[in-house]
Amino acid sequence: MRIERATNLNSLKRNIDQDSEAQLKAVKSILTQVREQGDAALYELTEKFDKVLLSELEVTEKEIEQAYSEVDDEMIAIIKEAAKNIEDYHVQQKKQSWFITKEDGTLLGQKVTPLDSVGVYVPGGTAAYPSSVLMGVVPAKVAGVGRIVLVSPPGKDGKLPAGVLVAARESGISAIYKAGGAQAIGALAYGTETIQKVDKIVGPGNVYVALAKREVFGTVDIDMIAGPSEIAVLADETANPVYVAADLLSQAEHDPRAAAVLVTTSEELANQVAEQVELQLKTLPRQEIARESIETYGAIYLVDSLSQGVDVINEIAPEHLEVMTEHPMELLGKIKHAGAIFLGPNSSEPVGDYFAGSNHVLPTSGTARFSSPLNVDDFTKKSSVIMYSESAIEENAKKIAAFARLEGLEAHARAVEKRLGESEHE
Amino acid sequence: MRIERATNLNSLKRNIDQDSEAQLKAVKSILTQVREQGDAALYELTEKFDKVLLSELEVTEKEIEQAYSEVDDEMIAIIKEAAKNIEDYHVQQKKQSWFITKEDGTLLGQKVTPLDSVGVYVPGGTAAYPSSVLMGVVPAKVAGVGRIVLVSPPGKDGKLPAGVLVAARESGISAIYKAGGAQAIGALAYGTETIQKVDKIVGPGNVYVALAKREVFGTVDIDMIAGPSEIAVLADETANPVYVAADLLSQAEHDPRAAAVLVTTSEELANQVAEQVELQLKTLPRQEIARESIETYGAIYLVDSLSQGVDVINEIAPEHLEVMTEHPMELLGKIKHAGAIFLGPNSSEPVGDYFAGSNHVLPTSGTARFSSPLNVDDFTKKSSVIMYSESAIEENAKKIAAFARLEGLEAHARAVEKRLGESEHE
Repeated sequence: MRIERATNLNSLKRNIDQDSEAQLKAVKSILTQVREQGDAALYELTEKFDKVLLSELEVTEKEIEQAYSEVDDEMIAIIKEAAKNIEDYHVQQKKQSWFITKEDGTLLGQKVTPLDSVGVYVPGGTAAYPSSVLMGVVPAKVAGVGRIVLVSPPGKDGKLPAGVLVAARESGISAIYKAGGAQAIGALAYGTETIQKVDKIVGPGNVYVALAKREVFGTVDIDMIAGPSEIAVLADETANPVYVAADLLSQAEHDPRAAAVLVTTSEELANQVAEQVELQLKTLPRQEIARESIETYGAIYLVDSLSQGVDVINEIAPEHLEVMTEHPMELLGKIKHAGAIFLGPNSSEPVGDYFAGSNHVLPTSGTARFSSPLNVDDFTKKSSVIMYSESAIEENAKKIAAFARLEGLEAHARAVEKRLGESEHE
Repeated sequence: MRIERATNLNSLKRNIDQDSEAQLKAVKSILTQVREQGDAALYELTEKFDKVLLSELEVTEKEIEQAYSEVDDEMIAIIKEAAKNIEDYHVQQKKQSWFITKEDGTLLGQKVTPLDSVGVYVPGGTAAYPSSVLMGVVPAKVAGVGRIVLVSPPGKDGKLPAGVLVAARESGISAIYKAGGAQAIGALAYGTETIQKVDKIVGPGNVYVALAKREVFGTVDIDMIAGPSEIAVLADETANPVYVAADLLSQAEHDPRAAAVLVTTSEELANQVAEQVELQLKTLPRQEIARESIETYGAIYLVDSLSQGVDVINEIAPEHLEVMTEHPMELLGKIKHAGAIFLGPNSSEPVGDYFAGSNHVLPTSGTARFSSPLNVDDFTKKSSVIMYSESAIEENAKKIAAFARLEGLEAHARAVEKRLGESEHE
């Protein structure tokens, strides 16, 4: 891993997947086909892209039972415990409706209401991610969403992975459908005979899924478009290089475009981590992916002080940040931009990916500057509540009318003035 | 106004402004020019589109003083009071960081951090909306955003409207720039010599502004793309038809594509409101706009019960909802989808546009199903905080590793297992 002074962070700038005109055209055509033909389009496109002719779109109770028999009991217990931890964490995010009253009788407030329905997209292909099912579904469930459905592309055998089905059942899904790609997004946005339209679509996917989500945004709500992910570790001389290297590699194995960065005040640690990375890389099954990530986007930055280190971190705005310093909690106040902050030697990043309870759907590629982890608020919306009293309108109608006239909106002015004792039915 | 049974609500479906390929191409070219040429592009494009060659982009202290001398003292006092009311309401929305601890020493939490910088777009042209300045800037200020800048296209005299400048100063803006259209969005997203890049852009604008916001989304955050707005009134026989008609018209005068709808159990009220609308329309300065809106998208729907009325409202998901029934508060629990809910005879919609304190930037065109009024949360982001204890990792490392292996991510599994007493520097 290259070691350098923290002066130029340009190496971290990676572009979000560039979509071609051709891809966008294909996505638009698929969306139109699904909107016009419904289920028939889904069967046809699934045969075309996933190479399987389905007999039905919805996963049956029997398939779910089958999945439970395929996953061993110990693993089911771990999934249950993870789901419980995720629920316990997200329950803390729930917001209450509130109101304030004034002595004149006016009431102002904010009503919090769960969304009616949500669709969770789970990618298929070589990687099956039961943990992503939990992370998408549990917060929606905690928010009180009435109908939560899951869509995921089937394998050539027409099935979804057993782990995905178990996680879906454990997190309280309403229905599971075999559909992937842009066609699944179209079905969730417009509805088909089998798949009802939802209000919001969440979950990661390939470039076609991302483009389709962008296209239907407005018709339904979507979560963020995810880019390549990253980890940054801020460490001083007290950090264990074995831990640091292992955690950097846990991110690097995801994707050749993942970034793993160490920011440290200790040149000794820098050298030891570089050595450890090389050593640990050798025996990794996904060595090739991890090596490409480390060589292209990996870096060790030396800084003069932890304070400068925090500045570098805020500049990067990493998806995951680990702080392995003598007193990590003391730095928390200065850390402005990071999706998830892991403090101390025991908070290895996979702890958050699977088990601690916080969400692993996090803002990537520097968007932690303005975005948040997936959370319960994403599955609710607010309504303002205004109940003006008679004395309040009498006191303020003239002021409100004046403001409306300043903006040239006479009907606005008259509407409030009507409340000032004009004849009831003029 | 047409009166019909509430069976078919299709008349309310209006499309969000369709953008043409040509418009998108123009916007992309403007964004590129601003990114490449900075200030020079802004001067050139402002001359081209706003017909004025500016001497500088930033509004000077002298211009603000001048604005104060142009707005009368009473109006300044009203703007101050409105700003105070908006602040008082939005302060209630502020969220605290929180944490939970476990007896084993684990700490899990969520850190709430204000955005570093925000740009508020304020449309120019014939309509100047000082109230929109307050609604965009005050919540950002309450959230604790460090730098809040305003951009708005100058008139041919090279000036911004006095009311806009006064509202900007009263709401605590950091800087005001004369720039509009897609070029202003480009400046906020990429930065120029004069205008620093921001993290989020909010505020309504024409189709070019909307397209530009959509293009830069991801580089910066944006608020919702607004469509045509609407009001729905739910009323029984106790409602005053004069009030109902006046409030419907206050929405209709905004835009020929605005929608104003009454849903009522009372045929008598329906007839009286239709009459009143006709009567009140006659003397409105913006009669032409309001009439087109009422004739095209206005409707009175008769329902058999208030319960059916609420169902119709939830189907519409209106931006503004007024409830003028004998006991409006009793219906609040059943109302699921509405941007702002005005209860009782005194809560005329303009009360919320200008003065009560709630935000007037609301989800339009049915997006209240999944979107919220502009609020303090929009100007903050969250970071998860995970501090796992030594005993927690000892207890759970094997489970976490098993979950990682289920997903085929061996480096994840090893990272947590390293914590289980392997040699310090293997």
